[in-house]
Amino acid sequence: MTQSPDPTDSVPYRWGDPAHAVQLKPGMRDTLRQLGADTAAASVEPEQATVPDSRLPDDFRRRLVAIVGERHVDDSHQSRVAHAGGWSTTDLLRLRSGDAHAAPDLVAYPASHDEVVQILQECMRAKVAVVPYSGGTSVVGGLEPSRDGFAGILTIDLRRLDAVTDVDPVSRTATLQAGLRGPQVEKELQQHGFTLGHFPQSYEFASVGGYAAARSAGQASAGYGRFDEMVVGLVLATPNGTLQLGTAPMSATGPDLRQLILGSEGAFGVVTSVAVVIRPIPQRREYDGWAFDDFDTGTRALRALAQEGPHVAVVRLSDEAETAVNLSNPSKMLEGGPGGCLAIVGFEGTHDDVSRQRDQVEELFTHHGGRPADPEAGPSWERGRFAAPYLRDALLDEGMLVETLETAGFWSKLPQIRAAVTGALTQELNGDGRHALVLCHISHVYETGASLYFTVACAQSDDPVGQWNAAKEAANKAIRSAGGAISHHHGIGTVHRSIYHAEIGELGMETLRAVKAVMDPAGVCNPGVLIAPEAADATL
Amino acid sequence: MTQSPDPTDSVPYRWGDPAHAVQLKPGMRDTLRQLGADTAAASVEPEQATVPDSRLPDDFRRRLVAIVGERHVDDSHQSRVAHAGGWSTTDLLRLRSGDAHAAPDLVAYPASHDEVVQILQECMRAKVAVVPYSGGTSVVGGLEPSRDGFAGILTIDLRRLDAVTDVDPVSRTATLQAGLRGPQVEKELQQHGFTLGHFPQSYEFASVGGYAAARSAGQASAGYGRFDEMVVGLVLATPNGTLQLGTAPMSATGPDLRQLILGSEGAFGVVTSVAVVIRPIPQRREYDGWAFDDFDTGTRALRALAQEGPHVAVVRLSDEAETAVNLSNPSKMLEGGPGGCLAIVGFEGTHDDVSRQRDQVEELFTHHGGRPADPEAGPSWERGRFAAPYLRDALLDEGMLVETLETAGFWSKLPQIRAAVTGALTQELNGDGRHALVLCHISHVYETGASLYFTVACAQSDDPVGQWNAAKEAANKAIRSAGGAISHHHGIGTVHRSIYHAEIGELGMETLRAVKAVMDPAGVCNPGVLIAPEAADATL
Repeated sequence: MTQSPDPTDSVPYRWGDPAHAVQLKPGMRDTLRQLGADTAAASVEPEQATVPDSRLPDDFRRRLVAIVGERHVDDSHQSRVAHAGGWSTTDLLRLRSGDAHAAPDLVAYPASHDEVVQILQECMRAKVAVVPYSGGTSVVGGLEPSRDGFAGILTIDLRRLDAVTDVDPVSRTATLQAGLRGPQVEKELQQHGFTLGHFPQSYEFASVGGYAAARSAGQASAGYGRFDEMVVGLVLATPNGTLQLGTAPMSATGPDLRQLILGSEGAFGVVTSVAVVIRPIPQRREYDGWAFDDFDTGTRALRALAQEGPHVAVVRLSDEAETAVNLSNPSKMLEGGPGGCLAIVGFEGTHDDVSRQRDQVEELFTHHGGRPADPEAGPSWERGRFAAPYLRDALLDEGMLVETLETAGFWSKLPQIRAAVTGALTQELNGDGRHALVLCHISHVYETGASLYFTVACAQSDDPVGQWNAAKEAANKAIRSAGGAISHHHGIGTVHRSIYHAEIGELGMETLRAVKAVMDPAGVCNPGVLIAPEAADATL
Repeated sequence: MTQSPDPTDSVPYRWGDPAHAVQLKPGMRDTLRQLGADTAAASVEPEQATVPDSRLPDDFRRRLVAIVGERHVDDSHQSRVAHAGGWSTTDLLRLRSGDAHAAPDLVAYPASHDEVVQILQECMRAKVAVVPYSGGTSVVGGLEPSRDGFAGILTIDLRRLDAVTDVDPVSRTATLQAGLRGPQVEKELQQHGFTLGHFPQSYEFASVGGYAAARSAGQASAGYGRFDEMVVGLVLATPNGTLQLGTAPMSATGPDLRQLILGSEGAFGVVTSVAVVIRPIPQRREYDGWAFDDFDTGTRALRALAQEGPHVAVVRLSDEAETAVNLSNPSKMLEGGPGGCLAIVGFEGTHDDVSRQRDQVEELFTHHGGRPADPEAGPSWERGRFAAPYLRDALLDEGMLVETLETAGFWSKLPQIRAAVTGALTQELNGDGRHALVLCHISHVYETGASLYFTVACAQSDDPVGQWNAAKEAANKAIRSAGGAISHHHGIGTVHRSIYHAEIGELGMETLRAVKAVMDPAGVCNPGVLIAPEAADATL
């Protein structure tokens, strides 16, 4: 139904194009052994995975068929397994072990906003939990609704909503349907001379609907903005009808309801399209590496850049450990230590813009103790910018536990947040001959603060899912007590829910529940994601 | 209780410092006569204004006294008249005629967030409508809650909440209490080397609470951002407790609830403080004038500036009629016509920034058909930037009807919006020997669109309030049908409510009502503002 590459068309726990699978370098295996890793047990083939019996009544299925047509309703084993969760490491570990308990009962593929509304109304009537699926790349359990009290789970796969329906070159806006994936968006806009400039690490598969649902931020967010900053309008399908927003870029027409829908993670309904700002394709894209003696020095330089300008496209800074891992050969992975920190600065724009900004950054960074890094550092980052998920697969094969987590905070709190998270993760994971690597980088900068992105690698224990869940809980608590936000761009899903509730407080939660009750009176929209599930009575 | 200048300390229908009152130039009166104006009838002295009997029960008053102290509860005639509405022209016309029916029954002056929460809880208990008041500068009826079904109206005047409670120079944030007025904010931040950079036309009196409640945008919004873009955290007092938001500049922690509170205009509760981004005091502030042959040419140049940069502080463009009025002597007011259009571009920053940006703007504007205007144009705009409300008073004295309204839209729609609004206003106001002047400027620019700000002047009819209400309704409909937002920075209040409801739709309205029901279960918070009042039963 779509020509784009699709993780659901291949092995559902291996990322992307098999041709791009990462082969670990010689010597890496020895390093992993030093960390305590054993080669993982062979994975269960997807065809052998265990899924719950599909239990939706025939009548409901018939109604869906009446809306979208027989060939767009699918309850095959293959399709259900392919939609069983997202791409967190625990999602992958479970699928590798043959556990597809999170699989939906049925998958529907609507082709229009109106079809989505009709499906949601059927779900309300039949008390079927419904999860919107576009890229499928959630790493926070956002695709795993609660079954309790529902007749079953329907996945609405939005891949047929894959059109750019409007391009306004004067206003520099485009209207994108929710099922469009990153590369499709760029390809379509390119024909008009524009780019969206949104490049999350999951770019190959993540989609517009997911960007909107989870407040995505791409690697070029410093220049192009977060996705929620790009959105000037949106259309939301709910069981209670349609909400259409966005008459102007900004206004004083009451609360900005666009920002209430962005980040709602399917709990209020399904975002079917968004209007976004688009920019001319840059004449040049250049990525430079800069070296700093330590993370604190580099952080001060990045802060100066974010606060004083110029506003470049990409700004990142790896800490000492991540720099060591990224720059050295695998045998040096364990050393970490005082090798300094690598920053990446990306410039996109006209030839003049890029030249001018480069000069300004050189002056600023030199003033703040930076020096140009190996000229290959920038291009090397560019080549590998979407490769991490492939590397994770290869490391999981070798018995490693590899996962990422992230937070954001104000500049003055970043040092304490980083120390707290690193400490919590190493304390939780070290032991029994295992030694955790905790790497950190700043990936997105703002005038008043930044994000911190952590990559964790550790040899798997006998219960890697439990092992990670314990580490994750420790990290969540550390983030909260150090004053960070529980997510910068991954979202809340199910795994951040309880800490999120503490972050926005009881009145904040009551507000979200009240909004949900208006848009989704039967509580069928992604129940348990973002908002804790209420006891729901199955009425079938 | 406050040292800052205060319109409520002087004549409540004359703006600002009497020493700054505008004297019309010789010849202006003749021009006004040509427009059909007669000198207005003498105004009723505030002491003679008619206010409804204060009807709140003694018990309620005693409870307020227990919270804030006897000297901070005021039901004097003077104080009630001073809080009777905002600063729209119809507000002023009514007060000038001695009509203070909108006066609250009582005014309370709390000194802390907790006192505000306690007052709101008392209002909920006693079913007293409550309106937060900080600058008092609403021009959309935002200070005029519905009385129907309530025991009375209490105004919470926030002027005692006037502290800058935190300045974080590393993160470049400051925490501002809601009662701080523009000049107070700048004075306090200046001591730390910072500026907020928020300069609405109402700067002398408008306050932080109002900025937040109504999504204010200042004249330097192109560079410093709108107020809602400056806010990184806020504290809201509601009858149902406290909502505290803002752990990071931006995050993926669900919907951005800050943007649900900003623009809520007192309908959900009272914003008692906000955390905002602050910037170093610029080394230089320079304002240049640029001339364009016509509004379309100038608009294209401004669009190029907003979309391609540099990001300067101030960007404005007056249309032909406004340019003629601003630049010529009063006798040329009626000519309008082909005198070209004046743009103002303001630069703020380091010496280097200002020089570089000036060069870039010169290149861009020259390319787009601009030429430098009279060197006095920029400084002249700067001197007069806060003067319009004084001029209005003088023109009202002369029997003129003078008012402003504004909208925002995407660039491609701006021409049709401007034509529709201008047409609707002139058609409604012209006749019976009267000739309306409708002036327009672009006052705020974004990549994807801009605001349009209209100034209307016409000789008063026998019923100037009715005359303006009819014109305003025609303009509202024109904005809506041409695809603009019903307000760019004035807000919704009561006068935009019905068009606003059409703009966000029934589901949007149900959502707002649901949020209000959580935070304000008894519906006492600024009833009828933003959200249409529901029949409320007085329970006293």
